[in-house]
Amino acid sequence: MYTVDLNADLGESYGNYTIGNDEEIIPLISSANVACGFHAADPSVMLETVQMIRESGSTGVGAHPGFPDLMGFGRRYMDMSMAEVRSMMFYQLGALDGFCRVEGVLMNHVKPHGALYNATFKDAELARTIAEAVKDYNPELKLMGLSNQNLVRAGEEAGLEVRHEVFADRAYEDDGTLVSRKKEGAMVTDTKQAVDRVVRMVKEGKVESINGRDIDIKADSICVHGDGPKALEFVKEIRSALGKEDITIQTM
Amino acid sequence: MYTVDLNADLGESYGNYTIGNDEEIIPLISSANVACGFHAADPSVMLETVQMIRESGSTGVGAHPGFPDLMGFGRRYMDMSMAEVRSMMFYQLGALDGFCRVEGVLMNHVKPHGALYNATFKDAELARTIAEAVKDYNPELKLMGLSNQNLVRAGEEAGLEVRHEVFADRAYEDDGTLVSRKKEGAMVTDTKQAVDRVVRMVKEGKVESINGRDIDIKADSICVHGDGPKALEFVKEIRSALGKEDITIQTM
Amino acid sequence: MYTVDLNADLGESYGNYTIGNDEEIIPLISSANVACGFHAADPSVMLETVQMIRESGSTGVGAHPGFPDLMGFGRRYMDMSMAEVRSMMFYQLGALDGFCRVEGVLMNHVKPHGALYNATFKDAELARTIAEAVKDYNPELKLMGLSNQNLVRAGEEAGLEVRHEVFADRAYEDDGTLVSRKKEGAMVTDTKQAVDRVVRMVKEGKVESINGRDIDIKADSICVHGDGPKALEFVKEIRSALGKEDITIQTM
Amino acid sequence: MYTVDLNADLGESYGNYTIGNDEEIIPLISSANVACGFHAADPSVMLETVQMIRESGSTGVGAHPGFPDLMGFGRRYMDMSMAEVRSMMFYQLGALDGFCRVEGVLMNHVKPHGALYNATFKDAELARTIAEAVKDYNPELKLMGLSNQNLVRAGEEAGLEVRHEVFADRAYEDDGTLVSRKKEGAMVTDTKQAVDRVVRMVKEGKVESINGRDIDIKADSICVHGDGPKALEFVKEIRSALGKEDITIQTM
Repeated sequence: MYTVDLNADLGESYGNYTIGNDEEIIPLISSANVACGFHAADPSVMLETVQMIRESGSTGVGAHPGFPDLMGFGRRYMDMSMAEVRSMMFYQLGALDGFCRVEGVLMNHVKPHGALYNATFKDAELARTIAEAVKDYNPELKLMGLSNQNLVRAGEEAGLEVRHEVFADRAYEDDGTLVSRKKEGAMVTDTKQAVDRVVRMVKEGKVESINGRDIDIKADSICVHGDGPKALEFVKEIRSALGKEDITIQTM
Repeated sequence: MYTVDLNADLGESYGNYTIGNDEEIIPLISSANVACGFHAADPSVMLETVQMIRESGSTGVGAHPGFPDLMGFGRRYMDMSMAEVRSMMFYQLGALDGFCRVEGVLMNHVKPHGALYNATFKDAELARTIAEAVKDYNPELKLMGLSNQNLVRAGEEAGLEVRHEVFADRAYEDDGTLVSRKKEGAMVTDTKQAVDRVVRMVKEGKVESINGRDIDIKADSICVHGDGPKALEFVKEIRSALGKEDITIQTM
Repeated sequence: MYTVDLNADLGESYGNYTIGNDEEIIPLISSANVACGFHAADPSVMLETVQMIRESGSTGVGAHPGFPDLMGFGRRYMDMSMAEVRSMMFYQLGALDGFCRVEGVLMNHVKPHGALYNATFKDAELARTIAEAVKDYNPELKLMGLSNQNLVRAGEEAGLEVRHEVFADRAYEDDGTLVSRKKEGAMVTDTKQAVDRVVRMVKEGKVESINGRDIDIKADSICVHGDGPKALEFVKEIRSALGKEDITIQTM
Repeated sequence: MYTVDLNADLGESYGNYTIGNDEEIIPLISSANVACGFHAADPSVMLETVQMIRESGSTGVGAHPGFPDLMGFGRRYMDMSMAEVRSMMFYQLGALDGFCRVEGVLMNHVKPHGALYNATFKDAELARTIAEAVKDYNPELKLMGLSNQNLVRAGEEAGLEVRHEVFADRAYEDDGTLVSRKKEGAMVTDTKQAVDRVVRMVKEGKVESINGRDIDIKADSICVHGDGPKALEFVKEIRSALGKEDITIQTM
């Protein structure tokens, strides 16, 4: 009766530099967030990534736009104007769409990357700018953002379909934002605990915050990682646990 | 009875750096070759450029992809593999198309920039790779290349509509390629002479080479420049001369 | 009896993009802040700039390191770690020093650029990191920062000679920081007023804040601009006014 | 009675991207060619790399400048002017020297990277430009280039100490240049054969070309690789074989 999407960030290699096990993770997820050349990926990587996703047949393609900062992998906040964010979104969405067009697949969703994603937790104007840029680019695109926070709210206000994203391996503050990686306890390292949290988020719409309080959460899509053999194992365990709980994995 | 297209390279500013008189040149031309962020242009420049072209109403938008070399302005040859050229074309076409989509205009043509354009004179495989990339991206796009040379030939073989480009201010070798800027006599600096050459190219399909021989040339589109007040004056003179000769300027 | 330094940001061209009137401004100033390739400048520009400064004979060379953001001209804050700032400083100082070595001139000072400079107003840890990087690179270098603020304080604590910088064309808050350009009244547009302010800063060590209060200020170096004919005129007027007031212009 | 240098390219990681086993290879070699931020490396990587080399105590630091092409890892030829090459050399040498200065080590040598190195095989003017740039930067630096070819010749003409480099795992043409990786037989894949070739190059000054002819070769330094466990094993075998043959490994 329950369905949920599994998403992962992909296509993050660049030139001579390889990151991630894209070939192995793609068949295990239902939505792929593809880097667009600003924080990661070059054109050849993007083409190969979209090809792999198309060949997988069952994974949706999404754009994963980030700050123009390859050196920082898009994880360093950049104080860009809203006009700059807007045009940067168009550029990256268009670039990925070029590969989708060539490969004959439809771009399905957008999920901002790294510091661009995180900055929306506190910056509602940034969230609005991103949502409106997505809408102006293509109102059929789904916008993925942190569950119950600014980005999905802004997406709804813009008239977009939104997808509430949850994290299996991250702790939550009482307000539903992620505990900063700089704080202790930010990561949920126990696999069983992480899987149990995910199942509860999907079925009950609840998660326990780092302070021990139950908070409301909506779990449309679960973020998983594809870099490292452990990460792949973890995805397989989540898939198995979801299966046992009759939760269907399905592209959003 | 005659029609010809006037094209210029545009949208070459970047961040704090401004090049060209785009606002003034756009109303004077019928096709704009818009930089795509690799040799010039940033996303905000691209958005503004496509907006200006849309507002002009009468100028066609074309992609002007180049080598990934902002420092060299795309004028330095880079020995990329054909696979890299192909994916680089998709990326840049897609990126510009993103802005066209948002602005509600159709991308009309593609003209490679600088060293990428020049390298096709001798490299037929590069010409074919570019032509096939354009076709695989969108077979409705027109491909512009140096008149009667590899790029238009490759375009025709790929089944694309092609546009033969001529240069008013450049001397030609006997084989129809451009005289290198490093050689003496490469530039036609006399305005009257340049205008007369253009008119003859359009009406007679002939131009005199640097060695004094008449060679065949097909003039679908005339390349003009928009940087500097002199350049604008020159465009106006060409427009005036074409008018007197009953040659209509029209987007290809 | 009074001496003051006149400094300007230089060497900000890049590839095909030209900014500034470096040749004209260099003879009018006593310290040049040379871009180091991160927010502006390419290696050829840096070489030419250091050559011009050497030929001027009377202008000190300083490094003008900035955030790695050519698209934003170093004016967008980037949330880098202190370790990243430290290594980025070494890289840029070393790069400029390479050209100084070849040209046989000594690097005299360091002044951070744009958002890196401005961020030190509130971020004392950043100021310390910059000061310590300069000291670890070469303790003979002078560190220039906003008068009486974090950067010069951090420089003094690190044991560096510091230079208090003042702005002729900018309004000051009561705490001695610059009024943000986003606020009204941020710029002092009247030339006479600007010149009078500068003279008073040098002679009396006072400036009137935007709220009409006299605040203490130390004027070791006055920042002037070289882009635009108006800017050059302004520098000449400042020079003339300083001369009349018996204030000697001298490299710090 | 014989001595030889072992060199490897290092410090090629970038931001979130890691390449190579620098920590493991450094103690096994006597000269490290450190990427300077154009084809690979960021400032933090460069600082860490120079630190590791300093701590190793026995490995010489060299600059490994390359074309400004991170996407192509400096392996794509770029048609730069000689003036651009010259200033690009100064920039990269200076940048690395900045880290050497901070770490208190002396830069010992220069070896161009990838396509910049390879292009000198045929382009004597490029070789001269590189050699003269190194000399103008610091005439104490040793210049490493392919044994008996243009770069070492140009270095000698410029008055630099030069180091003839040989490759254990690459086949040679009759003229002493490397067989292109695109040709069959370009790589010597048998470890024993590779080691035997190296020993013979050091002791006899001869190597068999791909066509079976003995050619003269001078072996001042042997290039080894540090990426991959196999590569490390290979270096250890070379070290062991050199030891048995009483060939001392020593920084050039």
